[in-house]
Amino acid sequence: MSYPTLEPGGSLLIAWQLRGRRVLLVGGGEVAAGRLVLLKNADAHVTVLCAPEGLGKEMKYRIEVEQVVDKYIPEPYSREEQLTCGENGEMYDMILTAIDDPEASREICAWSRARHIPVNVADVPPECDFYFGSVIRRGPLQVMVSTGGKGPRLARQIRQRLENAIPSYTGDAIERVGSLRSALRKIAPRPEQSAARMSWMTDVCETWTIDQLAELDDESIPLVLEGWHDRTVPAYSQVMQSKRNWHWPRMQNVASFLLGVTSTAAIIVALAHRTHR
Amino acid sequence: MSYPTLEPGGSLLIAWQLRGRRVLLVGGGEVAAGRLVLLKNADAHVTVLCAPEGLGKEMKYRIEVEQVVDKYIPEPYSREEQLTCGENGEMYDMILTAIDDPEASREICAWSRARHIPVNVADVPPECDFYFGSVIRRGPLQVMVSTGGKGPRLARQIRQRLENAIPSYTGDAIERVGSLRSALRKIAPRPEQSAARMSWMTDVCETWTIDQLAELDDESIPLVLEGWHDRTVPAYSQVMQSKRNWHWPRMQNVASFLLGVTSTAAIIVALAHRTHR
Repeated sequence: MSYPTLEPGGSLLIAWQLRGRRVLLVGGGEVAAGRLVLLKNADAHVTVLCAPEGLGKEMKYRIEVEQVVDKYIPEPYSREEQLTCGENGEMYDMILTAIDDPEASREICAWSRARHIPVNVADVPPECDFYFGSVIRRGPLQVMVSTGGKGPRLARQIRQRLENAIPSYTGDAIERVGSLRSALRKIAPRPEQSAARMSWMTDVCETWTIDQLAELDDESIPLVLEGWHDRTVPAYSQVMQSKRNWHWPRMQNVASFLLGVTSTAAIIVALAHRTHR
Repeated sequence: MSYPTLEPGGSLLIAWQLRGRRVLLVGGGEVAAGRLVLLKNADAHVTVLCAPEGLGKEMKYRIEVEQVVDKYIPEPYSREEQLTCGENGEMYDMILTAIDDPEASREICAWSRARHIPVNVADVPPECDFYFGSVIRRGPLQVMVSTGGKGPRLARQIRQRLENAIPSYTGDAIERVGSLRSALRKIAPRPEQSAARMSWMTDVCETWTIDQLAELDDESIPLVLEGWHDRTVPAYSQVMQSKRNWHWPRMQNVASFLLGVTSTAAIIVALAHRTHR
C-alpha cells in the first residue's frame, strides 16, 4: 500500500476564518500587539481589554494613531463580565490573552473552554486550544511554520529560509489563477462541471510554472480558456505568441490611422500652400 | 514608525490542539481519507460516519487493516442525532464533512455553528469556520501553505518548493533544541528566570546554525549549558573541541588500563614460565 504513513504527535494546522468575527484580546504589551496584527490581517473585529498603563508603544500606536482597534476598553481584567460583549452579554467568537498574570489567564481560559469559545493563552501551552506559529505573507499566500511549541525561535529561523524560497511573484500568480478560475466559472457555470473545472485548473497550474502564471492578464486569460473546450492546456509560449499576434492587427490599424492622418494633413498643408500662393 | 504594516484579507493561521479530542468525520471518500490522516497526525480520537458502500480504498485500509479509526459507524448521515457522541449525546470537539451532498453539508454546518463546534465542509468555503492548507511535516516541524481558498493546487506547487528549502536535519535540530531547553530548565527552574531562559535560548538558536543545532547530543548539551552562567553562547567550534578533549582523558584511561592488563599478563606469563622451569 502506498498511502501516506501516519506520523502522530503534531497539531492540526488550519486557516481560521475571522472576517467580521468578534475577538477579545486581553493585554496590551508586545505579545498582545503581535496578536493584534495577526487578527487584523484576518479581518477580525477586535476588542482590546487593558489598563492604560499596561499599553506598550506599538499597541498605543495601533489604537491612537492607526485606529485599527475596533473597541478599546481601558480596564485591567478583573471579572468574568468583561469576557462577554454587547449589552446582552453576547459571546465573543475567540478570546486571546497575553498578560503576566497566570491566575487571571487560567480563569479566562477555563471560562472560555466551558463555553466552547476558542482560546489562546500566551506562553501557557497547556491552556491553549491552539498555538500560533511564525508566518509568511505574500498577498493571498500565507505560510505558517509551527514546531508545536518545541522551538518558537527556531521556527522563526526556518521561516526566514522559507521566505527566500518563495519567489516575489508568487502572490501575483495566486491572484491571476483566481481570475482564471472566475473566468472559467463564467463559461462553465454548472455545478456538475465542477469536477472537470477543478481537474482542468490543476492541469493548468501543473503545466505552467509559477512565474508564467504570474504573467497571466486580461489578454492572455481568454487565450488560455480556449483550451477548456477540448480539455487541453495551451503552452505558455503558444499563448504569448497568440497574444503578440492579437496585438499585431491592432498595431496595423493604429499605423494605418496615423498614415491617414499624416497624409491628409500633408494634402491640406499642400493645398493651403497653393491657395496662399 | 517601523511597526509591521497591516495586510488585511487573510486568515488566522493556527495550530489546533486535538490530542484526545473527539472529532466526527462524515464521509469515506478520498477527501475524507486525507482529512483522517491530518486528524490522526494530530492525535485526535476520530469517529467516521459513512455507509459501507461509500468507503473508498484508502479509508477501508485505514479502518480495516491499519485500524486507526477509533470508531466507525457504518451509516450514511441522515439525522441530527448522529452528530452527538456517547450515550448522553455529548458534543464532539470538531466536525468535518467530505460528502457529495450539499444539502446535508449545509445542515451539518448550521447545526455545528449554532453549538460553537468548529466545522469544516469540504469544497464549500463559505460554510467553513476554517480551511485546510497544504502541509509539510518533518518530525516536530509542521509547515502549512494556505492561499485562502484561492489556489489550492498552486499551494501544493509552492509546498513542493518549500520542501526542498527545508534541510532534512531540521526535525532533529528542533528535537535537540527541545532537549537543551529541558536541561536548562533543570539548572534554572525558577519562574522568575523564565525571561532570561527564553532570551538565552534565542541567543543559542541565533548563534548556531540549524545543522549545528542538529548535532547537539548528551555530551555537548552540558558544554553549551556552561555558557548559561555568564549568559554567553559557546561557539560551535569551541564545544566540539571541548567534546574531543573530554573524550581524550577517557581514551587515555582506557589505554592505561589496557597497558596495565597487558603488562600484568606479561609478568604473570614470565613468572609462570620461570616457575615451570
